[in-house]
Amino acid sequence: MSKLISYYEEHGDRFIEGLKELLRIPSISALPAYQADVRRAADFLVDDLRRMGLDSVELIEGDGHPIIYAEKMDSPGKPTVVLYGHYDVQPPDPIDEWKSPPFEPTVRGDDLFARGAVDDKGQMWILLKAVEGLLAVDGKLPVNVKVLIEGEEETDGGMIAKYLAEHGSELEADAALICDTEMFAPGLPTITTGVRGIIYCEIDVTAAKTDLHSGNYGGVAPNPMQAMAEIITGLKGKDGRILIPGFYDDVQAPTDAELAAWKKLPFDADEYRKAEIGCTELTGESDFGPLERIWARPALDVHGIRGGFTGDGAKTVIPAKALAKVSMRLVPAMDADKIAKAFCDHVRALTPKGTVVEPRVLAASPSAVVSTDSPFVVKAAEALKETFSKDTVYIRCGGSIPVVGLFGDAGISPVLIGFGLPDDNLHAPNEKFHIPNFHKGVEAIGRYLRMLGE
Amino acid sequence: MSKLISYYEEHGDRFIEGLKELLRIPSISALPAYQADVRRAADFLVDDLRRMGLDSVELIEGDGHPIIYAEKMDSPGKPTVVLYGHYDVQPPDPIDEWKSPPFEPTVRGDDLFARGAVDDKGQMWILLKAVEGLLAVDGKLPVNVKVLIEGEEETDGGMIAKYLAEHGSELEADAALICDTEMFAPGLPTITTGVRGIIYCEIDVTAAKTDLHSGNYGGVAPNPMQAMAEIITGLKGKDGRILIPGFYDDVQAPTDAELAAWKKLPFDADEYRKAEIGCTELTGESDFGPLERIWARPALDVHGIRGGFTGDGAKTVIPAKALAKVSMRLVPAMDADKIAKAFCDHVRALTPKGTVVEPRVLAASPSAVVSTDSPFVVKAAEALKETFSKDTVYIRCGGSIPVVGLFGDAGISPVLIGFGLPDDNLHAPNEKFHIPNFHKGVEAIGRYLRMLGE
Repeated sequence: MSKLISYYEEHGDRFIEGLKELLRIPSISALPAYQADVRRAADFLVDDLRRMGLDSVELIEGDGHPIIYAEKMDSPGKPTVVLYGHYDVQPPDPIDEWKSPPFEPTVRGDDLFARGAVDDKGQMWILLKAVEGLLAVDGKLPVNVKVLIEGEEETDGGMIAKYLAEHGSELEADAALICDTEMFAPGLPTITTGVRGIIYCEIDVTAAKTDLHSGNYGGVAPNPMQAMAEIITGLKGKDGRILIPGFYDDVQAPTDAELAAWKKLPFDADEYRKAEIGCTELTGESDFGPLERIWARPALDVHGIRGGFTGDGAKTVIPAKALAKVSMRLVPAMDADKIAKAFCDHVRALTPKGTVVEPRVLAASPSAVVSTDSPFVVKAAEALKETFSKDTVYIRCGGSIPVVGLFGDAGISPVLIGFGLPDDNLHAPNEKFHIPNFHKGVEAIGRYLRMLGE
Repeated sequence: MSKLISYYEEHGDRFIEGLKELLRIPSISALPAYQADVRRAADFLVDDLRRMGLDSVELIEGDGHPIIYAEKMDSPGKPTVVLYGHYDVQPPDPIDEWKSPPFEPTVRGDDLFARGAVDDKGQMWILLKAVEGLLAVDGKLPVNVKVLIEGEEETDGGMIAKYLAEHGSELEADAALICDTEMFAPGLPTITTGVRGIIYCEIDVTAAKTDLHSGNYGGVAPNPMQAMAEIITGLKGKDGRILIPGFYDDVQAPTDAELAAWKKLPFDADEYRKAEIGCTELTGESDFGPLERIWARPALDVHGIRGGFTGDGAKTVIPAKALAKVSMRLVPAMDADKIAKAFCDHVRALTPKGTVVEPRVLAASPSAVVSTDSPFVVKAAEALKETFSKDTVYIRCGGSIPVVGLFGDAGISPVLIGFGLPDDNLHAPNEKFHIPNFHKGVEAIGRYLRMLGE
């Protein structure tokens, strides 16, 4: 390993410079205006994979943003590992809260700040640079590798879903290494064994045929903003319980072993509230601990309400319509389709007086769990332990990585190793990646792939 | 009168062309970006008043947008009448719902479409053009006239409030003719005898120190959008009752005579709902009729909620903060300061778990009522009846015209004559002015000023 580690150390700064180049490309998959930039990020990676010496480098095209494919299949008899990541990023707004521009990667202290720094350009880059080192030092890879990097993870992931459904089994891969999660705490090697599912919805509320003056009509005209507030409070109570009938029916509790392991994690709820979230009080179901609420309980959140007047000043309008963006996080064994239907039925049943309400499901994917008994997980835990000199912990992730389930469906064991930190401001202003974690990550992945080839 | 009416008929088209010029100037007082346009509209009117032959034409300057002053004091022994209007307009959004651009005045059928067409450029223009005709035909005015046209009616009206408080009694005026209201129905001459007051507020809700990923934090992090929904439903119930303690304590019912007169108005609640509002059901306090709810009952409306993600696509953010814009309409004898305090106290008391809530009052002004016994009102009713060949009706206005109370405080009798129509889309897309009403309005005001001079 020492030769490999030396290579990584020697080339570490160059790796970071390359990552910065990629971070300068605003590959925001959700916003049509950035389509050319998304493509530019894909082309950048194609060039880099070719330069690294991977074979069959190509863009898999379709209706959406292309998937990048590459392979190195020179190790007959060895396992085949898919390296998965995504090159698209979240929109950067609210833009005025960034201390440095989101697409001008900036190092402050040991951190690299940029949209996508950790989610997922930086972590995806770990996989590629680990492979680059192995190829440079050994001339070949210890296992067979197939690279799949998608460009729609932050939207609907439609391309990769279609690709894995149609061609997943043709990949004939044994494991999929997904580098898009985080460490439970700084320095604590972590494997994620479950992700929540997600249903993303919009709710349209329409009232009058046009915007109205609140002076002339206030007191008789239905107000879609008020109506939306009634719907939202009808979806979730003040106690954090979701009020959709049947919502909790299929929720499966984690195993006693999992719960016991979580209790042993270094976690201080008050510190978490203050330092990580920064609010006066945690919310949600008080009969479950915070980690259990995030990892093993479903959730519902409103992301924004469009409509009316939100500029500066005092416009007195009763808007004709409003739109809310709402998502739910699902846990085992909730059925995404069933919950989506229950949500829509309940929203319609809540229809406030004088309004027409129309819920709409934009995307739905179920939760997924990974067994800690999988040999690919066991070896990953060993590789991490060796790199970080600490026992690897198993956690779940409250977020949704639909591809985990998709790999599972294609008979490929997902392995989720992450090097993000809890304060990396994922999806928020001032997203960052802790640079030492990048370098440790490259070393850990290089070591893991070697161990898989032994 | 026939000579005057002929003049108005001959010059009617020119009046409309002049109005169009004024409507092309986007004098949006609420938006700082349009400051130069607001000034341009003021200059346009100054030029026109000078051209008409008024004296002492000047801009009254101060912290905000200037007030236009002009006078014609050549009728000793006759009453002095203030002609009041405003040259500023509401923002035009949502801009994509306009059939023709808001600042390109467009005639379709008998209607002139533009932001400000009726509120209030068109109606203010009626006063000026009536005066222009009297000066042209008679060489002098039948009464003494002082013109006061403000540029902040659609924001806080700060300039005119300060001016009238400080200089109102120096005006030594008997009546103030305010042309900024509407007719109860097409062809039905109407005098408005009361306006509601308004308190315009903002509510800040802050939770986490930064925007959060709803996957990683959904279930424990307080969500300001959810919190805002809880606050809003805590302000007004599903039955339309406002839940602020003490809110209704000082509400004064209209007189029996007023109520009886309102019952006689040509009003069909179902037709009103369908044709004018265009919603499935009217909302509000069901123990009061629709007209009573608008004219004589207080109201509360949410105008918009800022925060989170409202673009296209699926961003899964728990925003760090949200801001709501809320206003209340006040009726006699509610005290604006007392209600503002009760609102803020109640909002703070509603503070949802895990959030910090800060209400803020942007503007507050009380309601005002005008006695139908005032000789200036009686003559106005006669002038209108003669012009429209129909008995004049007395209504109230659900909107707020703070200047009504300010004139009253300065010992000047307010008279509210309006020529807008209920479907003129005030403060909404496709605002219009019914062109025949403009011409009838000019005639009615010319006649009224003559009658006041008799």
